[in-house]
Amino acid sequence: MNGQYKAFWIDNNGFVEVIDQTKLPFLEETIVLKNADDAIRAIKDMIVRGAGVIGNIGALGVYLAVKENQDLKYIVKKIKQIRESRPTAVNLMWAVDLMLEKILNANKNDDLLELSFAQAIKICDEDSKRSTLIAKYGCDVLEKIMKEKGKTSINVLTHCNAGWLAIVDDGSALAPIYEAKRRGIEIHVYVDETRPRNQGANLTAWELSKDEINHTIIPDNTGGYLMQQGLVDVCIVGADRVSANGDVANKIGTYLKALAAYDNNIPFYVAIPEGTLDFEIKDGVKDIPIETRSEDEVKYIKGLNKQGIVEEVLITLKDSKAVNYGFDITPARLVTALITEKGLCKTNEKSIKEKFKQ
Amino acid sequence: MNGQYKAFWIDNNGFVEVIDQTKLPFLEETIVLKNADDAIRAIKDMIVRGAGVIGNIGALGVYLAVKENQDLKYIVKKIKQIRESRPTAVNLMWAVDLMLEKILNANKNDDLLELSFAQAIKICDEDSKRSTLIAKYGCDVLEKIMKEKGKTSINVLTHCNAGWLAIVDDGSALAPIYEAKRRGIEIHVYVDETRPRNQGANLTAWELSKDEINHTIIPDNTGGYLMQQGLVDVCIVGADRVSANGDVANKIGTYLKALAAYDNNIPFYVAIPEGTLDFEIKDGVKDIPIETRSEDEVKYIKGLNKQGIVEEVLITLKDSKAVNYGFDITPARLVTALITEKGLCKTNEKSIKEKFKQ
Repeated sequence: MNGQYKAFWIDNNGFVEVIDQTKLPFLEETIVLKNADDAIRAIKDMIVRGAGVIGNIGALGVYLAVKENQDLKYIVKKIKQIRESRPTAVNLMWAVDLMLEKILNANKNDDLLELSFAQAIKICDEDSKRSTLIAKYGCDVLEKIMKEKGKTSINVLTHCNAGWLAIVDDGSALAPIYEAKRRGIEIHVYVDETRPRNQGANLTAWELSKDEINHTIIPDNTGGYLMQQGLVDVCIVGADRVSANGDVANKIGTYLKALAAYDNNIPFYVAIPEGTLDFEIKDGVKDIPIETRSEDEVKYIKGLNKQGIVEEVLITLKDSKAVNYGFDITPARLVTALITEKGLCKTNEKSIKEKFKQ
Repeated sequence: MNGQYKAFWIDNNGFVEVIDQTKLPFLEETIVLKNADDAIRAIKDMIVRGAGVIGNIGALGVYLAVKENQDLKYIVKKIKQIRESRPTAVNLMWAVDLMLEKILNANKNDDLLELSFAQAIKICDEDSKRSTLIAKYGCDVLEKIMKEKGKTSINVLTHCNAGWLAIVDDGSALAPIYEAKRRGIEIHVYVDETRPRNQGANLTAWELSKDEINHTIIPDNTGGYLMQQGLVDVCIVGADRVSANGDVANKIGTYLKALAAYDNNIPFYVAIPEGTLDFEIKDGVKDIPIETRSEDEVKYIKGLNKQGIVEEVLITLKDSKAVNYGFDITPARLVTALITEKGLCKTNEKSIKEKFKQ
């Protein structure tokens, strides 16, 4: 982890300090996670979110469990709870399982605390390296699109947040955008607000403003019109899980943007580290489990009132019923390619297998 | 006008009283429009909205201008201003032009006030009759779908608001739903919240709750997933303008739902009265003008705070840029058929011409 901005870090007491992402962009507050339960709550309540960071905090949560109590029974119980704190993110399962494996395979003389800390940090550092490679390969794609169109600037549309708040250090979907800035490319980003939790308006816009990258927030309804009018050159999103056949589980609404991109011949890329691939699932549309969240996330919204205080307001009738699915599945046929740390990969079983299962 | 619920009516002083739709669903308040400028402001500020009602209030606004001042120059000036108060709604132009024609063709002995009032009411009454026919033909469609699927209940998805707040008395898109209730059909409606102004969550959900019709509010991002999962039997939306070739201008985001419906073989109907057709425009995708509205509609949102007071909160960074297009165009190829007062009509130039230009 060596980027300028970070979603979490280790504090002087060896605890895990995280930016409270539920407070952004209004308040920049941090929370210290002192034990596994704190980590579970942080993941469940979306104090931290984003496929990569969920995995990182999962791994660090295992380390915090070891820090609390080195009894193996206790650690395994907590690992199970951490694993179940968010159902859709495959990185979480992957990271936590890796921690479990290391702990179960430890030698008698190993210091479990040291070992679990080293393994968790290794997971984070490897994510960081992947993110740097995704930035590079993704930015090459942007340069290619500009060259083909004979343009000196580029308009990107993204959905939800897949920046450094989601994956250390550059993120996934935003990584090519940060790299474009470093390469001096003139870039503008259309940011889907991403209802109901508004991770686009709250997190992506905040991240981009930190880095002074030109961007415009749009209602989730707007992307189709922009694409019809030729105002978007490329879409890049992240993912929470990609099945063996290339179907993409990502924030609810991603599928609609992929349909619009396809309908308007606009390339639609999904930027992910390898850990997001789930080879167990052959048919993503049918078999990736989709998280249902509280209807209150639809019915209430947080904002700054006239007094400058963060306030939650009810935006429907009190008795209205709402439904809140966290993700949808974008079928592989609508995705131009995956952007991964191993380069681009077409979204079909053969290509994915060849690239990642060697 | 004879339905149970109304968006506006004539008060005892001959003024026009309207439900303030910007306050719904939190406050049920009315405003009295006393002159043409009041009517213009009501249309511009979306105190009244919806293709039909905008046309009605446009016509009644002309009547209010006559009530103020019978000087023809004054009336024509106000008619021009009313005509320009919302750019996308073709019903407004149509209704106002009809009023102008009647006034210009009046005989010397005609009472201009009486004549303009009668003409405006006639426009409203004709809308009401059309709405009743749209309800009938649309509900026949619902029954046909249920029969084909062998189902005893039906799930409809709608976007924005095209109920009686938009068109007297049953609306357009909601008309078949109200008729279904009258016919005793078990119906459930998925209501897109319709960002940025949330006409679905605020108006459609409120209308449906008044009539005790089972419904669920969903973020605009959700419809694609519901359709993937087979949870939607049919989509019905209204429109602000339909071109001669059947392209549909409706609330921003409609196009995305039409794409998802098409991708999942779900019928997608557009319910409109004939006045919504614009034969001057041959290619809707290219030529229907799209209204750009204030970015503050994206950045601020109204809701009830904990004290039960309606409050506006800022939901982005203060300095964030946002863009707010009011409508998008759904290409004719994605629309199953128009539901009109003359029955169903395929969305192609030939069918539209045959049905409406005889």
